[in-house]
Amino acid sequence: MHTLWTQRYAQRTQRMHSSAIRELFKLTEQPSVISFAGGLPAAETFPIVELQEACQRVLAEHGAQALQYGPTEGYRPLREMIARHTARYGIAITPDHILVTSGAQQGLDLIGKVFINPGDRILVEQPTYVGALQAWHSYQAEYVSVPLDAEGVQTDLVEAALRSGPKFLYVLPNFHNPTGVTLSLARRMKLLTLANHYGVPIIEDDPYGQLRYEGEHVSPLVVLDGRVHAHDDTPYSGNVLYLSTFSKTLAPGLRLGWIVAPVEVIERLVQAKQGADLHTSMLVQMVAYEVARDGFLDRHVRDIRVLYRERRDAMLVALCHYFPPEASWTEPQGGLFIWVTLPPALDATEVLHAALAANVAFVPGTAFFAQGGGQHMMRLNFSCMAPDRIEEGIRRLGGVLPRLLGHSA
Amino acid sequence: MHTLWTQRYAQRTQRMHSSAIRELFKLTEQPSVISFAGGLPAAETFPIVELQEACQRVLAEHGAQALQYGPTEGYRPLREMIARHTARYGIAITPDHILVTSGAQQGLDLIGKVFINPGDRILVEQPTYVGALQAWHSYQAEYVSVPLDAEGVQTDLVEAALRSGPKFLYVLPNFHNPTGVTLSLARRMKLLTLANHYGVPIIEDDPYGQLRYEGEHVSPLVVLDGRVHAHDDTPYSGNVLYLSTFSKTLAPGLRLGWIVAPVEVIERLVQAKQGADLHTSMLVQMVAYEVARDGFLDRHVRDIRVLYRERRDAMLVALCHYFPPEASWTEPQGGLFIWVTLPPALDATEVLHAALAANVAFVPGTAFFAQGGGQHMMRLNFSCMAPDRIEEGIRRLGGVLPRLLGHSA
Repeated sequence: MHTLWTQRYAQRTQRMHSSAIRELFKLTEQPSVISFAGGLPAAETFPIVELQEACQRVLAEHGAQALQYGPTEGYRPLREMIARHTARYGIAITPDHILVTSGAQQGLDLIGKVFINPGDRILVEQPTYVGALQAWHSYQAEYVSVPLDAEGVQTDLVEAALRSGPKFLYVLPNFHNPTGVTLSLARRMKLLTLANHYGVPIIEDDPYGQLRYEGEHVSPLVVLDGRVHAHDDTPYSGNVLYLSTFSKTLAPGLRLGWIVAPVEVIERLVQAKQGADLHTSMLVQMVAYEVARDGFLDRHVRDIRVLYRERRDAMLVALCHYFPPEASWTEPQGGLFIWVTLPPALDATEVLHAALAANVAFVPGTAFFAQGGGQHMMRLNFSCMAPDRIEEGIRRLGGVLPRLLGHSA
Repeated sequence: MHTLWTQRYAQRTQRMHSSAIRELFKLTEQPSVISFAGGLPAAETFPIVELQEACQRVLAEHGAQALQYGPTEGYRPLREMIARHTARYGIAITPDHILVTSGAQQGLDLIGKVFINPGDRILVEQPTYVGALQAWHSYQAEYVSVPLDAEGVQTDLVEAALRSGPKFLYVLPNFHNPTGVTLSLARRMKLLTLANHYGVPIIEDDPYGQLRYEGEHVSPLVVLDGRVHAHDDTPYSGNVLYLSTFSKTLAPGLRLGWIVAPVEVIERLVQAKQGADLHTSMLVQMVAYEVARDGFLDRHVRDIRVLYRERRDAMLVALCHYFPPEASWTEPQGGLFIWVTLPPALDATEVLHAALAANVAFVPGTAFFAQGGGQHMMRLNFSCMAPDRIEEGIRRLGGVLPRLLGHSA
């Protein structure tokens, strides 16, 4: 008798499904399609020569260590470097506050594993990062969504949502995925006050924080929270778990991220990671450390900012040119994405079908809503192609809208 | 108010704890300690030059692909190669039957995520691999244990255990961790018959299958099952999920393994992996493929076998020399471990304390028992040191036993 597989799966498996975005990728692989659907860094920014040199040095000088089993917490010099870099924003952080993860996605998964009971509510932004929803669906989370505006999550609506007793709050304060908006300093302080008052932790997801193209740096929630709780430089033990990644500053194909958290939480996350994959590739950790140790990434990110800023500007200009006056969009100060709001009469999934026929792709807004909504919205990525191709893609996309809006073209 | 972290964790977190073995490592890091506690491959076998060349070639020729986001299923040529290698044992396998994982440990975790509801029973060998228990504890599994003997799991006891309705059977048929025993062909066939009869899947964990030092190759369960279910070379759709790894044939620090499973199960595992870490490092996958593509690993494993066989023999000889006649041990045909049974009056944890004072370490048997037992047993690893050091370690270890046995030394 064959195993009846569908009768064997766990209940949580019923909540799992493939990300709409990753499924969409398969449609957009033909070179004739201009795809704004992904969130890919520009491949031409990958520091290939530096990585080649780092691979050589690491394997020549520390080959036995790079290829052997290693500690679950991560490669110690890398954790020290991350702690130093975080501390320069003004927070008392030690390597014991750092867990190296296989991309920030694994950080989301481990947090889900350690915190979420089936049926637990998670307070999320509306819209929010689809990968977080995907990670937490498999722990049978439920969601409470709070809308965003141009200053980020609407903190005056957060307090009411907190009364539903969420397990934690999940926010992307810098150049939010999918909308590109940045949480204002005042709202950051308000969120921290609320978290403190209700004793509810905040998960701060910050993959894009280094990619600011204009405006002033705003301190991460974890740093601001550290100041609130600071007593004579005692190590951080506040309410925020902070996630970041080397995917946007070095290369996503390495799969390398980290979590900053109070030491007692790191200990739990380490136990979860042991069962999940023992540890992240030592070779990858040591190569990333070797590339980054002398400050290379600070210089490298400056170049990336120049490139991406130009692309963002190209997309904003093209949107003004080719999109109908009924549409509006965000003007992000950094990151990878612009968020477009179409007239409510338009369904972005229908727009996508027409767009694919015109060889251009994007992600419809519904993918990013935990509790429905976003039908007339769309996420556009501007990081992975040259300005002339961005303009051509927006021209194609703008070209399909009038017909769907019932205008004469 | 600070978050009351211990009040926030999920119920499953109460089952998580650090592996006794990994905690023990911290005690055994001093070079004066001869440690048989780990399961480390010999670092001198790591093909550093080949990996350096592969890193150079991959980054020079395919840098943009190696450093960009990739498919969750894994790097296509690597999946094709694994499918080809598996198929040469005589099973109709395609790349669609393969999921690349971040080490075999992630395979265990993903299987737990997709299959285990809280309270589900898993049929395991007694003793069994501690990393599997650690992965599945966090899905709140319960266990039904079936003892092993020199031919592997006692299949005449499996049928009664199957009546408890386990979600799946978990076996390590080749050079079992921790005991070193190999499941006989007759018992493999019996297990497959039972699995087929009860419609219960088998998880076949085979990290050491390539490391046979003597005796005849026995086909993996998945291959034998493929023959049972074969109809004119239709692709495999039987009852076995097969796990393996490059950790023992190439290097564990890469964190690279794979699952072979029916296509419909792979699809579910892919969804789980998307949420867990998006995909395994593309750089690592492409470098491993580059090293392995021309058959290098087949030649390389021949050298590893010669080295490990010599070490196994050194340990067996030393055990005869230095251990009391009341002790017995397995004589594995491959793998990394020998399993020692002391007289029942001895407690291996007490032996460990005495051993550490004599600068020698091992893992007490209790770590490997899902439902208690193994107090007078110990696991010894022989792969990671030279024969003279193995002899010296066994001499030290044998030296502490007579006193604990109440003999005059």
